[in-house]
Amino acid sequence: MGEFDLIARYFTRPVHRAALGVGDDCALLAPAPGMQLAVSSDMLVEGRHFFADVAPERLGHKALAVNLSDLAACGARPLAFTLALALPRVDEAWLAGFSSGLLALADAQGCELVGGDTTQGPLNICITVFGEVPAGQALLRSGARPGDDIYVSGTLGDARLALEALQGHITLPPEVLAAGRLRLEQPTPRVALGQALRGVASSALDVSDGLLGDLSHILKASGVGACLDTHITSNLIAASDSPSRPICQFGPELIRQCTLAGGDDYELAFTAPQARRAAVASAALASDTPVTRIGRIEAAPGLRLVDAQGQPVARRYASFDHFATG
Amino acid sequence: MGEFDLIARYFTRPVHRAALGVGDDCALLAPAPGMQLAVSSDMLVEGRHFFADVAPERLGHKALAVNLSDLAACGARPLAFTLALALPRVDEAWLAGFSSGLLALADAQGCELVGGDTTQGPLNICITVFGEVPAGQALLRSGARPGDDIYVSGTLGDARLALEALQGHITLPPEVLAAGRLRLEQPTPRVALGQALRGVASSALDVSDGLLGDLSHILKASGVGACLDTHITSNLIAASDSPSRPICQFGPELIRQCTLAGGDDYELAFTAPQARRAAVASAALASDTPVTRIGRIEAAPGLRLVDAQGQPVARRYASFDHFATG
Repeated sequence: MGEFDLIARYFTRPVHRAALGVGDDCALLAPAPGMQLAVSSDMLVEGRHFFADVAPERLGHKALAVNLSDLAACGARPLAFTLALALPRVDEAWLAGFSSGLLALADAQGCELVGGDTTQGPLNICITVFGEVPAGQALLRSGARPGDDIYVSGTLGDARLALEALQGHITLPPEVLAAGRLRLEQPTPRVALGQALRGVASSALDVSDGLLGDLSHILKASGVGACLDTHITSNLIAASDSPSRPICQFGPELIRQCTLAGGDDYELAFTAPQARRAAVASAALASDTPVTRIGRIEAAPGLRLVDAQGQPVARRYASFDHFATG
Repeated sequence: MGEFDLIARYFTRPVHRAALGVGDDCALLAPAPGMQLAVSSDMLVEGRHFFADVAPERLGHKALAVNLSDLAACGARPLAFTLALALPRVDEAWLAGFSSGLLALADAQGCELVGGDTTQGPLNICITVFGEVPAGQALLRSGARPGDDIYVSGTLGDARLALEALQGHITLPPEVLAAGRLRLEQPTPRVALGQALRGVASSALDVSDGLLGDLSHILKASGVGACLDTHITSNLIAASDSPSRPICQFGPELIRQCTLAGGDDYELAFTAPQARRAAVASAALASDTPVTRIGRIEAAPGLRLVDAQGQPVARRYASFDHFATG
């Protein structure tokens, strides 16, 4: 099977919202009047973002999900995406699984594949996603103000807990490992919540490298500091709700590591004025997405962690950095 | 140097035409009213699209140039691009060279870097480029009609000739090799010509895999056939103009292979009604880009090659296919 057959068989579909899709030199997009186009690119590399033996359906899902998570963080509605794919060889079973996982999520989110590239090389998946957002209403990282509440959606840390188990550092009951692995390999982008937070949140981003590291981007962009309640964030790991209480075997340090600096959560972290608490609750309800208040923005720079008694918790959790040494 | 420092040092610049650039979850683009957004993605892999020892400045140039060539083929004006980059390691000298070649072309074309991704992995460069084109005026592959003339811009085959020499198959005089290598490693996208051809050309695409293979995409999309004058295309190789006449040492077969199926030309192939010959000449003049009439569109399917006497030339030139076997 050649390059063009491969594209035709696995990646060509009729387009509905784009003016022109796969098969010309460019795809053509026409944002509605008054709309801005939100654009994000993510590149996934074997061994870095996924294991070689991950199910191709899950990998297809994840490759698009991490991009949709960026759109969610901007409050944008998904519109279309391009896929550039380097493959070591043509493996039809793998391609069928990958494209099926990818396009199932694309269909569920109304996000159509409009173009891309395929080539031979070490496995690499690069997706660029396009969404639309009313002009001036995108959620940015720079709008947090002292006194704002800090929230996070869903749960934190289960992907990292599963990763620790898959790497042999800890042992988990099979059902807890399976649930965590699903979080790691097939994350759910918070697309509906992001749109519901337009006009409500003062800043937002998606938690992909770890809560503390990602939150620090908001603090830097907004010129503020923050205080986080670790007794609340430590309870956001879903594994703590498992009947077998697998979490009890681990000390608070591992739980903090997973929840505060775990990575691969793909939840939204956002801020909102205290006066908008009811509006935040409404956005959570409307998007059927749980959100938890985990701290507050302060004028003093830096990110402080406190426990249930308000006592400082030492911060020694490093976020994921692709080029960090040691 | 960490991931975020790397982005800040080499790839962050103020944006002018985009609403929001590098550093948030998404970039924000706002096409002007009445404009469609043309989008294209290309992925470059070491050993496949470039040699490991290519000068990083040239590679930075080429990575954007091949994408701008797709915009040119649509008649779109460059607007912005995202860059996703997998690097085996942080090599500051390489990054400085790569970003300088990349951004020099970006500045020359008014195309700004608005976002992207960096990660560790086998060297891979994925650029997604955005251009704008008045709604309904994009040049497509599907508009060629029987009787239309077929044109190609510039010269053909010199990149392939250089590649043959670099691979040790042939020997070239140093100045001819250097000129061909420049074509291979630092192609010139025909951006101005593409825009000048709006409303003139009936179809267009860029020649990246080889003239015959690429032209066949126009024929298929338009439901037509074509006849090409090989005595004209064989003269389009720039090396034939070299004072040392290096071409004389090779037979017509190699010249046809290079000009008809060479790859890496990044010229525009396009069609236009015979009645628009003056308009084509004006577009070439206005964009300061030579164009040559090389054949005509016919109703009968298939692509026929003829010589100066109108006699059929056997066709046995395969275009580049990333997954072709044998």
